[in-house]
Amino acid sequence: MSAHDPSARFADLPPPPYFAVIFSSQRSAEDEAGYARAADRMVELVRQQPGFLGMESVRDGEGFGITVAYFDSEQSIRAWREHAEHAAVRDLGHRRWYRRFEQRVAIVQRAYGGPRGAAP
Amino acid sequence: MSAHDPSARFADLPPPPYFAVIFSSQRSAEDEAGYARAADRMVELVRQQPGFLGMESVRDGEGFGITVAYFDSEQSIRAWREHAEHAAVRDLGHRRWYRRFEQRVAIVQRAYGGPRGAAP
Repeated sequence: MSAHDPSARFADLPPPPYFAVIFSSQRSAEDEAGYARAADRMVELVRQQPGFLGMESVRDGEGFGITVAYFDSEQSIRAWREHAEHAAVRDLGHRRWYRRFEQRVAIVQRAYGGPRGAAP
Repeated sequence: MSAHDPSARFADLPPPPYFAVIFSSQRSAEDEAGYARAADRMVELVRQQPGFLGMESVRDGEGFGITVAYFDSEQSIRAWREHAEHAAVRDLGHRRWYRRFEQRVAIVQRAYGGPRGAAP
């Protein structure tokens, strides 16, 4: 990700259908360094997961964030959920790093957008 | 929304299924005042839409943002898309306020989360 290439923030996805895991969270004030390390490691791991299609993520100065990770199938989502290192970090997240979180799993039916000028 | 009540950032939703409109965008550097006014007005309008269930929204210091709006049905999403004032503002958004955006419409199948301690 780079401020000089805004397109790097967007996921390049195949045509729908595919699956979205929508994760909203409010960070606690605890353990910023540990959180940042774990977050970077999770991005590295999820990118290696079979069936991972892409992700978009943003967190603001108040610590509220939304991450949407896209997968090709329910099977791929399940495999990621059951990944041992991910499960351990997720448990820490629930107990320490997040004041609250919500996760929603959805099937994307249609998509549109693109750079300015390319919109339908 | 208030920094003193982080839960105000989360949508309180009924049990799935329901629909999600996932909107990712990179702001241009143009017209911050006009954009902010329009964004506030759109939040006010969408909250009055029949079938609107809630929304979560975040934008960071680099101007990248994700907003997820939840609706009870495809019909409600269509009515919101065809709302005249929304359509006019959306057109301005595509031409002026966003360098790029992506929109994905999805059916949420399952959801979990909650304040810390309440997680399954």
